[in-house]
Amino acid sequence: MRNLLLAAVATLLLCSCSAAQREATSCGYNACPKPVPGRYNVHLVPHTHDDVGWLRTVDQYYYYEVQFIIDTVIEELLDNPERKFTYVEMAYFFRWWREQSADKQAKVKQLVKNGQLQFALGGWCMDDEATTHYVDIIDQHTQGLRFLNDTFGDCGRPRVAWQVDPFGHSKEHTAMLAQMGFDGLYYGRIDYQDQALRRKTRRMEMVWQASQDIGSPRADLFSGKLYDGYCQPGGFGFEYGDEPVQDDPQLYDYNVEQKVKQFVDMVNSRRQVYSSDHLMLTMGCDFQYQNARKNFKIYDKLIKAVNARTAAHNITVYYSTPSCYTKSVHDQNLMWTVKSDDFFPYAHQAHAFWTGYFTSRAALKRYVRTASNQFQAIKQTSCLAGLQRAGPQLEAKLDLLRQAMGVVQHHDGVSGTEKQVVAYDYALRVSTGINQAYSLLQSAWANLTGDSAAYSGMSSCSLANISYCPFTDSNNNFYLHFYNPVSHPVWHLARIPVKGRYYVVSNQQGQAVTSQTIPVNNGTLRVPERAGAKSSYELVFNVSTIPAMGFVVYRVAAAAPGSPGVSTFTPIQSVFMDSKPADGELDWRDGGSESLNERESLDYRPVFAPLKRDDVIEFSQLKEAKKSNPIGDSKMSYMAYYYGYPGNNSAPEFTASGAYLFRPTKQTPERFSLEEIASVTGPVVNETHVVWSNWTYQVLRKFANNGDSLQYSENELTVGPIPYDANTGREVIVRYNTQLNSSATFYTDANGRQVLRRVRDYRPTWPLQQTENVSGNYYPINSQIFLNQSDGSSFMVLTDRSEGGGSINDGQIEIMLHRITVRDDALGVGEALQEKGSDGRGLVVKVTHWLAADQSLPSSSRRRRELANRRYREPLIGYLTAEPKVKSWSGLRRPLPENVQVVTLDDWRGPNTKLLRLEHLYQIGEHPALSQPVTVALGQLFATFNILSATELTLAANQNLNSAQRLQWRTPAGGGTTVGDAAREAEERLQLEQDITVTLRPMQIRTFVVQVQYL
Amino acid sequence: MRNLLLAAVATLLLCSCSAAQREATSCGYNACPKPVPGRYNVHLVPHTHDDVGWLRTVDQYYYYEVQFIIDTVIEELLDNPERKFTYVEMAYFFRWWREQSADKQAKVKQLVKNGQLQFALGGWCMDDEATTHYVDIIDQHTQGLRFLNDTFGDCGRPRVAWQVDPFGHSKEHTAMLAQMGFDGLYYGRIDYQDQALRRKTRRMEMVWQASQDIGSPRADLFSGKLYDGYCQPGGFGFEYGDEPVQDDPQLYDYNVEQKVKQFVDMVNSRRQVYSSDHLMLTMGCDFQYQNARKNFKIYDKLIKAVNARTAAHNITVYYSTPSCYTKSVHDQNLMWTVKSDDFFPYAHQAHAFWTGYFTSRAALKRYVRTASNQFQAIKQTSCLAGLQRAGPQLEAKLDLLRQAMGVVQHHDGVSGTEKQVVAYDYALRVSTGINQAYSLLQSAWANLTGDSAAYSGMSSCSLANISYCPFTDSNNNFYLHFYNPVSHPVWHLARIPVKGRYYVVSNQQGQAVTSQTIPVNNGTLRVPERAGAKSSYELVFNVSTIPAMGFVVYRVAAAAPGSPGVSTFTPIQSVFMDSKPADGELDWRDGGSESLNERESLDYRPVFAPLKRDDVIEFSQLKEAKKSNPIGDSKMSYMAYYYGYPGNNSAPEFTASGAYLFRPTKQTPERFSLEEIASVTGPVVNETHVVWSNWTYQVLRKFANNGDSLQYSENELTVGPIPYDANTGREVIVRYNTQLNSSATFYTDANGRQVLRRVRDYRPTWPLQQTENVSGNYYPINSQIFLNQSDGSSFMVLTDRSEGGGSINDGQIEIMLHRITVRDDALGVGEALQEKGSDGRGLVVKVTHWLAADQSLPSSSRRRRELANRRYREPLIGYLTAEPKVKSWSGLRRPLPENVQVVTLDDWRGPNTKLLRLEHLYQIGEHPALSQPVTVALGQLFATFNILSATELTLAANQNLNSAQRLQWRTPAGGGTTVGDAAREAEERLQLEQDITVTLRPMQIRTFVVQVQYL
Repeated sequence: MRNLLLAAVATLLLCSCSAAQREATSCGYNACPKPVPGRYNVHLVPHTHDDVGWLRTVDQYYYYEVQFIIDTVIEELLDNPERKFTYVEMAYFFRWWREQSADKQAKVKQLVKNGQLQFALGGWCMDDEATTHYVDIIDQHTQGLRFLNDTFGDCGRPRVAWQVDPFGHSKEHTAMLAQMGFDGLYYGRIDYQDQALRRKTRRMEMVWQASQDIGSPRADLFSGKLYDGYCQPGGFGFEYGDEPVQDDPQLYDYNVEQKVKQFVDMVNSRRQVYSSDHLMLTMGCDFQYQNARKNFKIYDKLIKAVNARTAAHNITVYYSTPSCYTKSVHDQNLMWTVKSDDFFPYAHQAHAFWTGYFTSRAALKRYVRTASNQFQAIKQTSCLAGLQRAGPQLEAKLDLLRQAMGVVQHHDGVSGTEKQVVAYDYALRVSTGINQAYSLLQSAWANLTGDSAAYSGMSSCSLANISYCPFTDSNNNFYLHFYNPVSHPVWHLARIPVKGRYYVVSNQQGQAVTSQTIPVNNGTLRVPERAGAKSSYELVFNVSTIPAMGFVVYRVAAAAPGSPGVSTFTPIQSVFMDSKPADGELDWRDGGSESLNERESLDYRPVFAPLKRDDVIEFSQLKEAKKSNPIGDSKMSYMAYYYGYPGNNSAPEFTASGAYLFRPTKQTPERFSLEEIASVTGPVVNETHVVWSNWTYQVLRKFANNGDSLQYSENELTVGPIPYDANTGREVIVRYNTQLNSSATFYTDANGRQVLRRVRDYRPTWPLQQTENVSGNYYPINSQIFLNQSDGSSFMVLTDRSEGGGSINDGQIEIMLHRITVRDDALGVGEALQEKGSDGRGLVVKVTHWLAADQSLPSSSRRRRELANRRYREPLIGYLTAEPKVKSWSGLRRPLPENVQVVTLDDWRGPNTKLLRLEHLYQIGEHPALSQPVTVALGQLFATFNILSATELTLAANQNLNSAQRLQWRTPAGGGTTVGDAAREAEERLQLEQDITVTLRPMQIRTFVVQVQYL
Repeated sequence: MRNLLLAAVATLLLCSCSAAQREATSCGYNACPKPVPGRYNVHLVPHTHDDVGWLRTVDQYYYYEVQFIIDTVIEELLDNPERKFTYVEMAYFFRWWREQSADKQAKVKQLVKNGQLQFALGGWCMDDEATTHYVDIIDQHTQGLRFLNDTFGDCGRPRVAWQVDPFGHSKEHTAMLAQMGFDGLYYGRIDYQDQALRRKTRRMEMVWQASQDIGSPRADLFSGKLYDGYCQPGGFGFEYGDEPVQDDPQLYDYNVEQKVKQFVDMVNSRRQVYSSDHLMLTMGCDFQYQNARKNFKIYDKLIKAVNARTAAHNITVYYSTPSCYTKSVHDQNLMWTVKSDDFFPYAHQAHAFWTGYFTSRAALKRYVRTASNQFQAIKQTSCLAGLQRAGPQLEAKLDLLRQAMGVVQHHDGVSGTEKQVVAYDYALRVSTGINQAYSLLQSAWANLTGDSAAYSGMSSCSLANISYCPFTDSNNNFYLHFYNPVSHPVWHLARIPVKGRYYVVSNQQGQAVTSQTIPVNNGTLRVPERAGAKSSYELVFNVSTIPAMGFVVYRVAAAAPGSPGVSTFTPIQSVFMDSKPADGELDWRDGGSESLNERESLDYRPVFAPLKRDDVIEFSQLKEAKKSNPIGDSKMSYMAYYYGYPGNNSAPEFTASGAYLFRPTKQTPERFSLEEIASVTGPVVNETHVVWSNWTYQVLRKFANNGDSLQYSENELTVGPIPYDANTGREVIVRYNTQLNSSATFYTDANGRQVLRRVRDYRPTWPLQQTENVSGNYYPINSQIFLNQSDGSSFMVLTDRSEGGGSINDGQIEIMLHRITVRDDALGVGEALQEKGSDGRGLVVKVTHWLAADQSLPSSSRRRRELANRRYREPLIGYLTAEPKVKSWSGLRRPLPENVQVVTLDDWRGPNTKLLRLEHLYQIGEHPALSQPVTVALGQLFATFNILSATELTLAANQNLNSAQRLQWRTPAGGGTTVGDAAREAEERLQLEQDITVTLRPMQIRTFVVQVQYL
């Protein structure tokens, strides 16, 4: 019975298309041109790369340019069945498709079926790899591939991934692409030194072993570097004016022989760096094929002319696609070298490191991160509440946000490398999407609790981060609904903008909890402005704990001073200082007697208490010490900034800092003269406020022990408006100095998951000639960066968004927070990066870092993995006026094992089918227990429904995993299925089918479509 | 019997297309959208303007750009039957058509049949109006319209003419368009002052009464000035980036209301200057619609949006064409103002007179003129010889030349406003065409004389103008075959490059004729170089006379000095001069005692004899006289030059001289210091050589009386290489000073036919505010310029090519000869005009002017008309080694009346059908006898065939004149058919049908297709 059901589901879940479409066998690799043996086979690959926003917004690009690309390409494909085209970005294809007549749609389906129109990647966009979060990466591919599957069935499935424009390639991103079922991956940009060596050694194509946790071949991906980018070879850009083939002997300038020679010479030059009998020529570029006829008409002639002279040059050329090229290369069964590091950072020439965008538009990066969490939480909650049972119209309220999140992952989106006006558009899209999606959240909670009354007027207070919350401003007595998207219970330190000093905060049992109010400003502190800040105070308290994938409700009521349980008002008190240190250094010492868990023996101790006179003296001593030892800033954190180089980009040495590139004028940052230090002391939190300047402001927070085993400190850094003038831009950093002996080594995550070891001035696969001591050592930090010492001691920083940084000096972590450049870096965006807020003034960015230190690897790994999970999946807070009936609830009948997290719970083609993803949070070797495989029974896992059956899909949910097949590639280690895998996989299939139980191994994300029955 | 035959012919001659095509009634005006009464009707007219060479060569434009225009437009028309398109230049459409499949051709025919694809003008190109010769104008329209007729039948016939880009409009050109059957004419450029007044008074559209000789309505043409050029209104250039209509409410930036407002505002602003209920919006521009989808897709949306809101703005808009617009305007039956002058010179703003191109590329202009004559002569001769009876392959040898001549008439062709590389291309095309066509001439003469032997090795010595003729260099004894294309016998002064000093020249009767040899250089004369000159001498003699449309053969044989009849060797002898005059003036006096016919009483007397010492003294006296009277240069001719203004075009006052514009830095020309004067005295010609500088050289020639009643003198002016540097360009003129009291008035021809009265600093239709005293008084001179005095005295200059000039001072004629500019004039060509020869050095131009003076109007008119006819139709000379059997022959059984000339005799669809045009050479009132109507019987006119029947066609031979109907327009004078015309026309029809006899009235050109029978 269950097996029958499963079979039906397996058919259902992937395709709503017609039987004819599913049965098509002429598409995919079957539609590929047959290689000509004995010839050098040139695959002429017509394609376009359509940025999903950059110089124009996505919609502007669509109606100014892309609609005509797809319009005219389709006409040209219909004109000649030999022609092929590859399209990539579903954000555009989706827009185009819905405008077409049924007749046109039928024609296009036929083109897909016969393999003329193929898709590569098929994501909603071609996403950035440095600044994107893994959940968003999975989502945007799932969304694009689902559209293709719904529209074209399996014929529409892209066989290869196509990351031809992103500027740096991530190991985790690649591991995920492998697990999505792609057979190949192509990119257009790698470091110029790396490329020179790879060309010389014919290692432009390789097998990327992208996860040692997942292992080979599951996480392996055949990866190819395009010759010199993804645009057509020079001289073959016919759409924009390169000399056409003129084959009419009745006209002057007949040039067929000359064009053939030009082509053959170009091919022969390129074939020197590749090893197979095939060459891929990517014919197209950004937004090309708006006039597809030009290209195709001339390509037809070129192909005809070259092939007519094959005997002379032994080259054959035909229309092809990236997937057909991949298949042809594969079928030669060559041996490939392997790669297991990544492609960061990317430099296209000396001094030109694309590491600025790791931080560019820091506010947008944060907004995308919070939106991602809210999006996941809303999907979860909607499923738990079974909203779709009332019809698809509710589910449709997620469409705008789903599309906006897909769009903003673009490599000129969250990367921060778009024009200012486009950045506004991205934010507007996300904001509009969230506003619409929030109504779902409200419905879900009302539904789950049977309490519409309480949730009907729910506010979300989305500007609480700038201390602006009209709701609390106008309510003295209210309820806070804390929803926790983590699959385990979490401790939460709440910080709520309020208008008064005295409140009683009560937990779900009605018990008053300790709370503290802190002024937003003491009136004299010269801090960066907080645009729109209305609330005078912030109310701080612990919420301990919020149930796994569930909520608690707390009550806040204004009270008279001295009332029982009332909050402690803790003013900001200026710290006495004998003399202000000239170069503004702040000691990271513990000013009090309080001892700290697990960190005692480390020399890292944040300043928790007001500085004493002695402390101030110590500043001076340190200042002296620094004179003799320039990098001897131990025990200190400070903010500082680089002047971005205002070059004219006329030569590598004149490279300017810009939206893409980070290039400091000097290799040592500029230091501030400290302006003021103040402190807050209270029962929930002690804070040290440091005013570095009137546009840089730091608050160090130490929280009272709240029972959470994963304690951390918080460093809130506010930057902006950054002053600048015609030649002076500033790129602001924070430095954390420790006495760890880090031996030039540090660790950063990839997209929030795998951690990569980084070594200063070193690349694993080629002898680096370093040209930028700072920028050339910057890496993307998506969620975490840390230092280890050989004795197991470590210091970690968990970020609230993607940022760039590294360890420029041993024992030190440096993170860039915010940046303004006064030049464009001549890479296309055409604007200096000078963000403005809606008020026209320079943008203020507030970053929070969670800081923690540990003495042992298991302890630090656990703290790092779990805090990173919490940082991303922070609670959603509903502000209510009416008292909810239900004060506490969990969507899980029991929390998941500590090393497992629900990544996705989403509706999937009907109310009783869900898409479910679970992940293992650890890498191999991080923790003796938590790095082990873990088994979860799905059947009775969720509180509101039972899972009746589950079918495993590839990561982007467009193939049944059992039937998905990938091309296998020979590597020196043997390649092919790892020994034991087959047996293990069979066992796991059985486990899933019979018991609806899944085992997760380190770093695994498993994707299921599940049939559910609501309780 | 004859009538039956005629009817059959009438059907045959116009259409080789299918019956279905001829029967189509949905095309033409029937295919036009119906005007919406009560609304303001906006005709949205998609069109493209494709220069037949300019920045690229015609073929480059075709394969880089135009092929895609027609390709994509056709697709878009097929996509939506509402859409319409207007195409103009047949040079391109012809190239495209022959590349299409039968299937595509059938589709296009259907588009023409249903009126979606219409043609305007339909010439081989959109020809220039200032520098083109009437024969070439007729030919290029005939050729284009014939292609349309052959391909599409009457549905392909353009209803309106379309001169939207030429820079100045000619009265004669317009009169010819009227006689070609067009119903309307549109242009894009008129003087800015003229336009301002016309806009203000709503006289942008008018009836142009283009010939007072032909009369109304035959030569009337409804003419409209487009609002501000032919490109789409600003903001509506969708193909190249203007904001599209975004009508998808699911995307951001929905802008339908805004785009409708933009459109309505634009329309309402334009309608202010027109008087009907219709407005034509020309949507398109140079080489637009390469991506037709962009435009059409967005126009569809715009039209839909505007019409959906008609009630709000009372505007209705639909796809239309220039012809449909014309018909709609016509049908309102409004009263129109009339115009009877022309639109020269054109200035688009103050100081920016487009009068430079009247002279630009003077060598190309001359080459085109000679090629035109040769082309006509070869066609004539082929017909006379009946070459086509041997099959069409011989006739096809004219194709290259026919196409080349069609191409070069383009308004950036013979106008001289193309890039240098394109100018080379035009010349190459003409040269290739002539080379191929010359083989026909050879065959024809061999055929006509039955003497293949004599003509098989015929040379043409085409570089005789630079004294280079390998034939005469290697033959001491040869025959010269002089072919005269004029319809009357002509006197000819032969000048043959030879290597020796002594020859005997014998006429067709074997009688020695007087001859003279003159050295090319005396070895010391500092004259402009003659690139490639090989011959040392020139042999000069009279050929008197050559039969009408026939030839004579002369013999030249080297002989010993002193032999009977041997040539007189006349060295070039330097003239003694006491002192070289500083400002280089040359006296126009008669140095001898010889009296001159008809010119005695005039103060104009060329220098015919060597200057005597007294003469030289007179130079000094004149120099003194000039001091007190700056324009008192009477009795003088001199060469001089202007410095072209090297402006940056940033404002009207900084207008630069360039290929289009002539703008002198000063209003008085720079004078030379005379270098040397020399003379030649001989029995055939006396010459005065004046070396003005080492790059300006003048030879004044007076010929001995040879019996010709139409004597003239010749002024040969050699200019170049013109020296220039970064800021100094020179524009070289010749001035002729007379003592005629010309009262600011002078006369120039239009395209070699009608003569227009010009008055300095005056325009007939608006109060001129003159901004350029010289350039603003320049007019095109196609063949003649003259001064009259009230007593009937006159002085005329007949040019050998189109040149610019005028009468800047009373009694004076100024003609620009050659020019180099050091700036581009920012009108698109993007190059300064700096012509180079194939050797890379600055071009040398040799111009000859024929000069004559008369005392009475009839005498001067006859001299002027007939010499102009001879100048254009100069003899073609064949160089033969073998003695031809036939020494003299005429293609006419009797010469035509003195005022009638055969314009065209060409094969026309088969060997026994010819196209025949006859013209009346005079205007009304020029001569008491010769300005009268004249009757010619055609039947037994030609020597080799009889004409069996004749059918009269419109001027461009694409309609039977009897059935051709034109729209009639109301004018204050009444309009409609001139009283008496109907009766006269009926009589003439009868005359033609019954007697094959035609009557020609002043300035008439009548076009016939005739059936012939070879004798």
